[in-house]
Amino acid sequence: MTATTDEKLASAADVKLALTGETKPQLSKEERLALINVNLAEVLNPEIIEKVLDEGRDPRIYWGTATTGRPHCGYFVPALKIGQLLAAGCHVVILLADIHGFLDNLKAPIELVNYRAQYYKFCIKSILEAVGVPTDKLEFVLGSSYQKSPEYIMDVYKMCSMVSEHDAKKAGAEVVKQSDNAPLSGLLYPILQVLDEEYLKVDCQFGGVDQRKLFAAAKEWLPRLGYKERAHIMNPMVPGLQGSKMSSSDPDSKIDLLDAPEVVAKKIKKAEAAPGVTEGNGLLAFTEFVLLPAAALYGDGEFHVDRERDGLPPLVYKDVAQMHADYQNDVLTPQLLKPAITKALTALLAPIQAAYQASKEWQEITLKAYPPEEKKKKEKKVKNKGSRYPGAAKGAEGAADGAAAEEGKAAAPAQ
Amino acid sequence: MTATTDEKLASAADVKLALTGETKPQLSKEERLALINVNLAEVLNPEIIEKVLDEGRDPRIYWGTATTGRPHCGYFVPALKIGQLLAAGCHVVILLADIHGFLDNLKAPIELVNYRAQYYKFCIKSILEAVGVPTDKLEFVLGSSYQKSPEYIMDVYKMCSMVSEHDAKKAGAEVVKQSDNAPLSGLLYPILQVLDEEYLKVDCQFGGVDQRKLFAAAKEWLPRLGYKERAHIMNPMVPGLQGSKMSSSDPDSKIDLLDAPEVVAKKIKKAEAAPGVTEGNGLLAFTEFVLLPAAALYGDGEFHVDRERDGLPPLVYKDVAQMHADYQNDVLTPQLLKPAITKALTALLAPIQAAYQASKEWQEITLKAYPPEEKKKKEKKVKNKGSRYPGAAKGAEGAADGAAAEEGKAAAPAQ
Repeated sequence: MTATTDEKLASAADVKLALTGETKPQLSKEERLALINVNLAEVLNPEIIEKVLDEGRDPRIYWGTATTGRPHCGYFVPALKIGQLLAAGCHVVILLADIHGFLDNLKAPIELVNYRAQYYKFCIKSILEAVGVPTDKLEFVLGSSYQKSPEYIMDVYKMCSMVSEHDAKKAGAEVVKQSDNAPLSGLLYPILQVLDEEYLKVDCQFGGVDQRKLFAAAKEWLPRLGYKERAHIMNPMVPGLQGSKMSSSDPDSKIDLLDAPEVVAKKIKKAEAAPGVTEGNGLLAFTEFVLLPAAALYGDGEFHVDRERDGLPPLVYKDVAQMHADYQNDVLTPQLLKPAITKALTALLAPIQAAYQASKEWQEITLKAYPPEEKKKKEKKVKNKGSRYPGAAKGAEGAADGAAAEEGKAAAPAQ
Repeated sequence: MTATTDEKLASAADVKLALTGETKPQLSKEERLALINVNLAEVLNPEIIEKVLDEGRDPRIYWGTATTGRPHCGYFVPALKIGQLLAAGCHVVILLADIHGFLDNLKAPIELVNYRAQYYKFCIKSILEAVGVPTDKLEFVLGSSYQKSPEYIMDVYKMCSMVSEHDAKKAGAEVVKQSDNAPLSGLLYPILQVLDEEYLKVDCQFGGVDQRKLFAAAKEWLPRLGYKERAHIMNPMVPGLQGSKMSSSDPDSKIDLLDAPEVVAKKIKKAEAAPGVTEGNGLLAFTEFVLLPAAALYGDGEFHVDRERDGLPPLVYKDVAQMHADYQNDVLTPQLLKPAITKALTALLAPIQAAYQASKEWQEITLKAYPPEEKKKKEKKVKNKGSRYPGAAKGAEGAADGAAAEEGKAAAPAQ
């Protein structure tokens, strides 16, 4: 039932190759599967996806995010995976979990949360367009559009009477803070997230590996209500771009999608990156999970590190393995890597920022979603969250505090 | 905030007196309060009810029951209290918690539960009519009529994010089975029951003292959502009519509202009743909480114990204190008491059974609510429940197993 994806990893070049033609019609089943599985940490029930492909259908896959905070560069990680899914011809449903966003911060009125949901939509769409992925099969659904319906709520009641407290707690163990003082909603959210698979009519749910227990619960719980079991695909937990220390202690350390190039440069310059250490290295992880896949989807699949200052030719990478080797040998130093990442990220942000400048609607929504006066008040720090829904997560080992947040699927990054 | 009602006890004669005129218009505030408070174990925030009376309004009070099983004679206990509330000019809302009934036994289709809700309605109404209480201010509300609405469910979500697991568990401690394997619904029900106060627009909730922790939670939780705090009135836990041993081990031991006089006699004959022991004595408790109040509402306020066989004049009681004294001194023996109770109960059941015989609709609903083939299957014994909602209760001390069930407010008596 469970397959690690090591053997399925498609190289950036393969992905690029698959995309340079007229996309889907020319992709074989194997090529589509390779694109679906690239960069994943784990897949549950891969046979469900294969069966959909065998039936000639396009797999329908959902990813959820609570619209609490403000998307930052960490959102590139799931967005690039979603880009790969779209490139593989999948339907992707993005659940903008506005009710969850609202519940996570009851001080924010529901209208504000809805403006934020619209802001999220602009951001995610423009990220995907920035890497040249067709978005005609991308669908956004507001949680409130069905999570208050009589059918849904009867299923919530039913599932609550079929799932034990113990199992609900276990399912949320990685993503919901486990304490006696934790709100009851933390036990309710797993129920909702499992039902969402049925109500969004998907074949598969995508999330971080921190969702593993919840996904395993979904496999068990849905059939209890007579609903079919879904496949689950999981991203690894990726360390934050700027290192774990900074992102959670300093709200300014997150790179906003609308940050100007000089701000991006300054923030990356401050990023943690011990020379020679690849483990938990946010810069290398961002390159692996964002910059290389972006290059594969849109560019030539290459990541360039300039060494002109030292009178040397640039380092050119097509995959992360060589980068890791060079970094461990100090051929690729933090001093060389940081400007290279700044350059690539700035290039990635440019079309997004251009789209923002061109859209009066997006600009207006931004003002409504993040009213300037709000910024003045130093908001109470929101604790690290799981990759899906509100409720502070237990610190993921290694990746630590900034991980989930920077990975871009945090419910509520500190604003 | 809390007042025991010892000092407020109205005698049966007072009640009778209050009722013999044209009821409410002639009742003073004090008389109405006396009727509201008679036979209660505890009142939280009595000033809320007093204020309503001072404002010239009729207090709106709700009592909830999950429509899982089949009402039996234990239901006379809350029904008589409701009769006193109606006699005091209160509006009484009876919540027929069909969703809870359905969730408690998912094997029963929702249609069956709805037929049972209709059966409950017939029973409760006819009990009240049997004791001559006007039912024009009695209102029945189906839980499903509002517990699936978007407004309600948003409030459920909200309250779940404001109430901790710990507090939800504490609130349900007396009425919901506390174990790791308990279904999540056990934590959700307290949330619903608290919100019901707001959605039924009541001034007060009525229940057994096993609801105390839940009522205390309601006082705390409703204001968190900006809703006002309600008063709470509580019945004592009354031992089962036939003693604690029989009612839970033998499904036939419960006296059904439609049982023929000879069946009633046989069942009461088998009832546990140690001579001289008044504590935990279900026969005396039934007299105190049902037969004497019924006599006060409808008859002369007297309970007669025939002693013709011994060539003695009958014992005549107007209150339970003298009964207890006589019972302890063996003047009133179980052998004398049992036929007296049989006679009074049979007289109480007669108009109910006549109403049943006269109503084709009630008869049809009974067949649908309790299909004959169901009886054949020996249904799995449902554990003792709290007085309100599904979820097996911890055995109330003293009153033991049969208490809550016989008190008539059990969610699911063994059928």
